[in-house]
Amino acid sequence: MSARRMLVVGAHSADFVWRAAGAIAKHTAAGGEAVVLALSYGERGESGELWKDPNQTVENVKRLRHAEAERAAAAVGARLETFDRGDYPLRIRDEDIDRLAALMREYAPHVVLTHPDRDPFNPDHPVAHSAVATARQLTAGAGVSSGFRTAPPSEFLVFEPHQPELCGFVPTVFVDITDVMPAKQEAMASMGAQGYLREYYTQRADQRGNHARRVTGDATIRQAEAFQRLIPTVVGAL
Amino acid sequence: MSARRMLVVGAHSADFVWRAAGAIAKHTAAGGEAVVLALSYGERGESGELWKDPNQTVENVKRLRHAEAERAAAAVGARLETFDRGDYPLRIRDEDIDRLAALMREYAPHVVLTHPDRDPFNPDHPVAHSAVATARQLTAGAGVSSGFRTAPPSEFLVFEPHQPELCGFVPTVFVDITDVMPAKQEAMASMGAQGYLREYYTQRADQRGNHARRVTGDATIRQAEAFQRLIPTVVGAL
Amino acid sequence: MSARRMLVVGAHSADFVWRAAGAIAKHTAAGGEAVVLALSYGERGESGELWKDPNQTVENVKRLRHAEAERAAAAVGARLETFDRGDYPLRIRDEDIDRLAALMREYAPHVVLTHPDRDPFNPDHPVAHSAVATARQLTAGAGVSSGFRTAPPSEFLVFEPHQPELCGFVPTVFVDITDVMPAKQEAMASMGAQGYLREYYTQRADQRGNHARRVTGDATIRQAEAFQRLIPTVVGAL
Amino acid sequence: MSARRMLVVGAHSADFVWRAAGAIAKHTAAGGEAVVLALSYGERGESGELWKDPNQTVENVKRLRHAEAERAAAAVGARLETFDRGDYPLRIRDEDIDRLAALMREYAPHVVLTHPDRDPFNPDHPVAHSAVATARQLTAGAGVSSGFRTAPPSEFLVFEPHQPELCGFVPTVFVDITDVMPAKQEAMASMGAQGYLREYYTQRADQRGNHARRVTGDATIRQAEAFQRLIPTVVGAL
Amino acid sequence: MSARRMLVVGAHSADFVWRAAGAIAKHTAAGGEAVVLALSYGERGESGELWKDPNQTVENVKRLRHAEAERAAAAVGARLETFDRGDYPLRIRDEDIDRLAALMREYAPHVVLTHPDRDPFNPDHPVAHSAVATARQLTAGAGVSSGFRTAPPSEFLVFEPHQPELCGFVPTVFVDITDVMPAKQEAMASMGAQGYLREYYTQRADQRGNHARRVTGDATIRQAEAFQRLIPTVVGAL
Amino acid sequence: MSARRMLVVGAHSADFVWRAAGAIAKHTAAGGEAVVLALSYGERGESGELWKDPNQTVENVKRLRHAEAERAAAAVGARLETFDRGDYPLRIRDEDIDRLAALMREYAPHVVLTHPDRDPFNPDHPVAHSAVATARQLTAGAGVSSGFRTAPPSEFLVFEPHQPELCGFVPTVFVDITDVMPAKQEAMASMGAQGYLREYYTQRADQRGNHARRVTGDATIRQAEAFQRLIPTVVGAL
Repeated sequence: MSARRMLVVGAHSADFVWRAAGAIAKHTAAGGEAVVLALSYGERGESGELWKDPNQTVENVKRLRHAEAERAAAAVGARLETFDRGDYPLRIRDEDIDRLAALMREYAPHVVLTHPDRDPFNPDHPVAHSAVATARQLTAGAGVSSGFRTAPPSEFLVFEPHQPELCGFVPTVFVDITDVMPAKQEAMASMGAQGYLREYYTQRADQRGNHARRVTGDATIRQAEAFQRLIPTVVGAL
Repeated sequence: MSARRMLVVGAHSADFVWRAAGAIAKHTAAGGEAVVLALSYGERGESGELWKDPNQTVENVKRLRHAEAERAAAAVGARLETFDRGDYPLRIRDEDIDRLAALMREYAPHVVLTHPDRDPFNPDHPVAHSAVATARQLTAGAGVSSGFRTAPPSEFLVFEPHQPELCGFVPTVFVDITDVMPAKQEAMASMGAQGYLREYYTQRADQRGNHARRVTGDATIRQAEAFQRLIPTVVGAL
Repeated sequence: MSARRMLVVGAHSADFVWRAAGAIAKHTAAGGEAVVLALSYGERGESGELWKDPNQTVENVKRLRHAEAERAAAAVGARLETFDRGDYPLRIRDEDIDRLAALMREYAPHVVLTHPDRDPFNPDHPVAHSAVATARQLTAGAGVSSGFRTAPPSEFLVFEPHQPELCGFVPTVFVDITDVMPAKQEAMASMGAQGYLREYYTQRADQRGNHARRVTGDATIRQAEAFQRLIPTVVGAL
Repeated sequence: MSARRMLVVGAHSADFVWRAAGAIAKHTAAGGEAVVLALSYGERGESGELWKDPNQTVENVKRLRHAEAERAAAAVGARLETFDRGDYPLRIRDEDIDRLAALMREYAPHVVLTHPDRDPFNPDHPVAHSAVATARQLTAGAGVSSGFRTAPPSEFLVFEPHQPELCGFVPTVFVDITDVMPAKQEAMASMGAQGYLREYYTQRADQRGNHARRVTGDATIRQAEAFQRLIPTVVGAL
Repeated sequence: MSARRMLVVGAHSADFVWRAAGAIAKHTAAGGEAVVLALSYGERGESGELWKDPNQTVENVKRLRHAEAERAAAAVGARLETFDRGDYPLRIRDEDIDRLAALMREYAPHVVLTHPDRDPFNPDHPVAHSAVATARQLTAGAGVSSGFRTAPPSEFLVFEPHQPELCGFVPTVFVDITDVMPAKQEAMASMGAQGYLREYYTQRADQRGNHARRVTGDATIRQAEAFQRLIPTVVGAL
Repeated sequence: MSARRMLVVGAHSADFVWRAAGAIAKHTAAGGEAVVLALSYGERGESGELWKDPNQTVENVKRLRHAEAERAAAAVGARLETFDRGDYPLRIRDEDIDRLAALMREYAPHVVLTHPDRDPFNPDHPVAHSAVATARQLTAGAGVSSGFRTAPPSEFLVFEPHQPELCGFVPTVFVDITDVMPAKQEAMASMGAQGYLREYYTQRADQRGNHARRVTGDATIRQAEAFQRLIPTVVGAL
């Protein structure tokens, strides 16, 4: 049987680390494959530390961000892909949608993760969401036989944004990441350019762990990540 | 290991049949236990056929409805409990909440199903929802150690109402009931007083089956039932 | 053919005047019947002018408010009924629900109007809404033959509250009241105790008239009242 | 007096058949005119059966789909217009909006029907909605005299999507299509490429008929179609 | 000029500490008065640690909880009031509403804080909300002169619940509590029975501080508390 | 200390007058600076009166509209900027976003006002909203140090649309404009092309004044304007 495939799409190369590194690590630890796609390197909006070097160049920032993201992806068992479409603003053209749909047809992910469709604090996250949602629909077809190659419909979830309530984010599933928290810590440690976010998301994992304990009564859960499913699941029993 | 326990609470004795008989049958077929609790017999609002007998009495209607519900519960492997609180209107007193909470503490269900909290077409369904939601919270405690007996937090879902969009119902999980559809048919056939609903809910199962196929691409699904989770789930991996 | 019957239920005896007098007048002018039911006289919360008389008594306030409401109802061709259940707070007991349901079974209205279910500025309006919604459901039965007397399902709308956006009110239908505006003015003039609201609701009728013109392009509309339907309508053609 | 004009806009040439053929037939049976506009032929996403012929060409698929849609339109008394903008993805340019607005100015519809603005299962439906909503606004002007040709504001409704709750669809009006159900059946039968949907939408018409009976108590209604109004209506009386 | 008065109402005696102690401390530090009202002691649902003593009595638990709450209130400059209405479940009778309204008329608060109206994890919080909302409306009157004593309308906000997204909580105002964090820490330290929550809410204050910095760009903010206004404010300029 | 800077962006040159002239006047009266940016002149959609002159030209309409808007801006102490991007439809290109973001970086407003994101009656208002929201995000950066010039995050509010409930507008702040109502009247009087709206918005100011009195109990408020904040505020105390 082939491995279960996960695709995680971020507007910037560091997005997957803070919001989904734990879920990726759980997925790959369970024998799954994971691809992380970064639509941009966040080279303008999220790399200010690097730009403090007066001799810095955009190509060098991208190179450093690529290396960081590769280390982080490796820490959770994922492979990195990049589109290098630029940030602040990330602008997605029709051909970028087509390229993303082609990737989805080829990779045929079972589950797709990306940003929510609304974020008053970031211009690029909703753009990434829209691209992923459209490409995913183009890939799956209309539920009837199509005149083009399709991939089976994937599960579709969004990961937690920085200010969840203001993005309309409501968690519907917590992933217990207790036993992969070291891998998430390692992935976060790889992101030199945004190191100060590490404490923030460590605390967040603790809090979501508290929520997951509250929901289940399971005291062994220490850390969790929160996700919102956009499409119903189908199960054999409740 | 003890069996997984499901509790299904309906305002009237027939409610569980139309909306959840398939999910109950799947649950018990998988080795789970199920208790169906009817807060009333629907003896006034949903038993008009029986009242066409000019010698009919309320006690006899309740007796007939009890027998029907027992047969339907048996068809899907569940045990029937009744509170006989009256219908049209169903009025829930503090002691009914306490009795329901006591039942939940004793039975300690892993999953609880009931009506949505809104229904412009039925005065009793939201009353049942409110009773179940409150009793469930009283049972689970505050997520900290309590000064009274508690049961672990249960999963909490609502089943599909008759006009879903007007009740604010949005499905989040489909249960594939293809292989237990005969048991659901048998349960529906047990409800002599509301026989005309049988075709309606058979069609509904087909349509939800279509939706579940669309979501998964799995062509083997023929019938399904729709549910909405009110509380996040916790999983080990996506 | 019998006349079309409208039932308008207000928490206080003046509520129907400001929010629905025009729609009532249009209804009766078209040959319909209308009953206005006041659950209380608003004798405490909305009769402050009367209480400036140091010799005032609650019975006298009610008597004056009754007479005003009768004059206003007469001005738009409606008949007044009162329950005298008290205001600030209006508290509805089970027997009040039953009494209201009995009135609805007897009168069998084709259309029912009342307050929205939310109002951060008035404790009594949502109580009235809830009573009307429940009694209406008890009257109509479950859409199947019942073991008690029913009336056909009525259309169900809420009228405009004082601060619509904060009550979740979204208009779905405007009634063109241009040709009955004098009757609405007369009804408003009858309400001595709250005379200062007359200008407010005259302006409001002008504004809703502007909105109704905008929606239709019909320049003959000068005044309108706004309502929100809670239940779909059924039509023979769009 | 001129006939009442209806405009139905679908992303693909078959969309109007499943969701609105009954309402169109009722409209034309009552003496109204109807134009069905197909923005694309659904030649890629919804014509998989045709593509099973190894010698199939896109031009031939479009030709066949055009003929089918013409037969279906004729069955309900409507005239077909096509924009042939391609599907999966349907991409709308500024000049397409302008062309649609020009059509609306010319035809001056009294009522416009199209897809809802959200559909997680179809990339083209929201694109069609957005084009129609924008063109309609451009046609109507700002409610003040304009420096360009306008048409009076039209009623604006969306028809039922395949999975209504997941598209945010809430019915506000049911059209009783009982007496034109044969015409809708004929229109559905014309759509050879998607014949398997015929049973699905026949059942759906039965269910919406059940809902419409429940809302009115009118037992003569057998089939109905559901719509959601996006703009208030203006009436002379409730 | 008299001091600005704040009223904070919690279902249980510890609620104000975790969610609003900082805002209370800021208020009193600025010369305001604050009253904390505990509707119950949380003696059953939130005092499990105390009940581990086999000789424990409910009266002793209440006594200990009262003392803790008084110390916590003192730490932030507030005065404690208690209604001792019981918890799990907290059940509010008409006379409790009247008592709360009388307190509000007497104290005439400028700002009122309480729980949100929804909480799937706690049966008592929404009960407290409803009591406060109703009593506040009864106190303020209908915006016209009343036949009873009133107090001016107060500002009305809800504090942050434990799982904000699942309670429909959306922050609209952050209070910068950086300089009173020691007082909040002292208040939290007073609550022996729930000491383990201290770390949770310390982290939460850090995170809300992060959000408040993000909103303003003001790097001096370290900790904040989040609130949601339910009623618009009126200002002299933006 | 430098003055507080306000930026008001309208799709058309008259938008700021009806919806925000009072708030601008209050702002400048308090010593603040204000810039009004008109993305278009509304030369096609809102200048019909001018087009009744058979010799009218688009350049002349723009010239007249510019002069009117300058007089109105002067009446409330603001400076006018224009982008002249055309109306009905207003179409915003990437370079327009960049130009707007550059203006925001340069001007560094403390508070930004524009249209809501939804308006079923106007195609240009949501386009303006989207442009402003995106440009504002690009200006503020990601809350971390950026590789480009930023301005501090501004407060972000939308002003009241013509039919508020149908645009999803819910007021969260009223500005008391009583003492600058003459300036707003003067600004409105400057807009010759849309003079008939003057009475409408004068009444609206009265009604919002009524609402603001109701919220505060402050009888000195006569007129107000309503706004909705999209981003939380941060305060030192409630």
